[in-house]
Amino acid sequence: MTRYLLRIEYNGGPFRGWQRQEDAPTVQGALEVAARQLTDDPVIVYGAGRTDAGVHATGQAAHIDLLDTFPDQKVADALNYHLRPDPIAVLSAHPVPDAFHARFDATERQYRYVILNRRADLTVDRGLAWRIASPLDAGAMHKAAQHLVGKHDFTTFRDVQCQAKTPVKHLDAIAVTRNGARIEFTCSALSFLHRQVRSIVGSLTEIGRGRQEEAWLSDILAARDRTACGPVAPACGLYLEYVHYPTLTIKEHMYEPEIGA
Amino acid sequence: MTRYLLRIEYNGGPFRGWQRQEDAPTVQGALEVAARQLTDDPVIVYGAGRTDAGVHATGQAAHIDLLDTFPDQKVADALNYHLRPDPIAVLSAHPVPDAFHARFDATERQYRYVILNRRADLTVDRGLAWRIASPLDAGAMHKAAQHLVGKHDFTTFRDVQCQAKTPVKHLDAIAVTRNGARIEFTCSALSFLHRQVRSIVGSLTEIGRGRQEEAWLSDILAARDRTACGPVAPACGLYLEYVHYPTLTIKEHMYEPEIGA
Repeated sequence: MTRYLLRIEYNGGPFRGWQRQEDAPTVQGALEVAARQLTDDPVIVYGAGRTDAGVHATGQAAHIDLLDTFPDQKVADALNYHLRPDPIAVLSAHPVPDAFHARFDATERQYRYVILNRRADLTVDRGLAWRIASPLDAGAMHKAAQHLVGKHDFTTFRDVQCQAKTPVKHLDAIAVTRNGARIEFTCSALSFLHRQVRSIVGSLTEIGRGRQEEAWLSDILAARDRTACGPVAPACGLYLEYVHYPTLTIKEHMYEPEIGA
Repeated sequence: MTRYLLRIEYNGGPFRGWQRQEDAPTVQGALEVAARQLTDDPVIVYGAGRTDAGVHATGQAAHIDLLDTFPDQKVADALNYHLRPDPIAVLSAHPVPDAFHARFDATERQYRYVILNRRADLTVDRGLAWRIASPLDAGAMHKAAQHLVGKHDFTTFRDVQCQAKTPVKHLDAIAVTRNGARIEFTCSALSFLHRQVRSIVGSLTEIGRGRQEEAWLSDILAARDRTACGPVAPACGLYLEYVHYPTLTIKEHMYEPEIGA
């Protein structure tokens, strides 16, 4: 048996989220069907984190066990072949120690949220960002967001369906930047509560619109009350960007290296 | 009558190009149907340039004449309303002098071509870039591309269907840059021949793959022979990024300005 770490990219649009479901298309389900073609036994794909329906990923991580040992590139190529035409791609596959676990060994999960701040409907970015027509103050959102950094009870920013044992999480970093009409939120933590990022982004837009002052974010955090949260940002703007495993000694190459670089 | 300059973005995927056709969906056709809702007379939408089937735009320009004068934002909003659900968006509309012409007054057209250099199929970027699995040398492509800058007979890089009076054009600038798996080509000129950008990009990838040396690009340019051209890059990676009108004194705002900026 060989355990492989997979780096996975997907357009979440057509899927009912990451987690396998009986009667709905999911990313984990599609990967398991594809992986089944590589081996005789059923394969379980263990993801680093479950993304919600409609949420995208550019650097999701997962591990699988295959009975045979294949060249790394062959595992990725074969999975991608069997995943067609689903918008799921295995960017890389690397053998890892048998004790490696994609979920429990991750030390940091990094999300990105994309807003396009303009009146016109989206065309090339349709389904890939949240359009907000009202002018937003990215600087004010960035400043307010800093109040969330550190260890807090994030009950306000936690979906009522959240199954985590505790609402206390440590947010390592959050930043809001603007480039033209594009506003990007990046945030990283060991782990997140269900809909935490979208709840934070949606609440920050209330400040960005000028409907709330900076202090309001601290107030609703301190309230530890889900009903105090702002609107939850839609799934289509959210990307699971990367999952970090600093103890892994392999050098992952998710893309072809540049010739001559 | 008031003449308006429109800035237009579109996903070219569903369209048979810019130019109006009897029995096929086109960008110009969709815009003219939408504009017809704003005025009693038929409206002609004069574009700065015709993009091919499947080619995208983020900053196409066009002008229209409307019998009534509307507030700028109302023209864009109304066109966008009537364009739904087509992936075409009017980013801005500004009154311009009656003598302004979107095609003849343009001094520079700027295109971008996007390659994703990786083995895995595209997911979030599907239909928005050209995937090339073989490793590409972006530096070699950039270097070779500089041979095309200036005034040349571009017959080699011109589609046989091209209707331009002369194959002689002046390429103002071309650059190839890499960021991870993403390779972007930008090029600008007063005007381009039919499929010139895609013919240049496709030929450059032959050098990027290491199949041809840098000097080959000069050789095929000098040949003035369409059959000497490399493969034509697919439409889905090409974006008409901007059309410049330096003599216009209006200050266009394609997006909402940032509050506090």
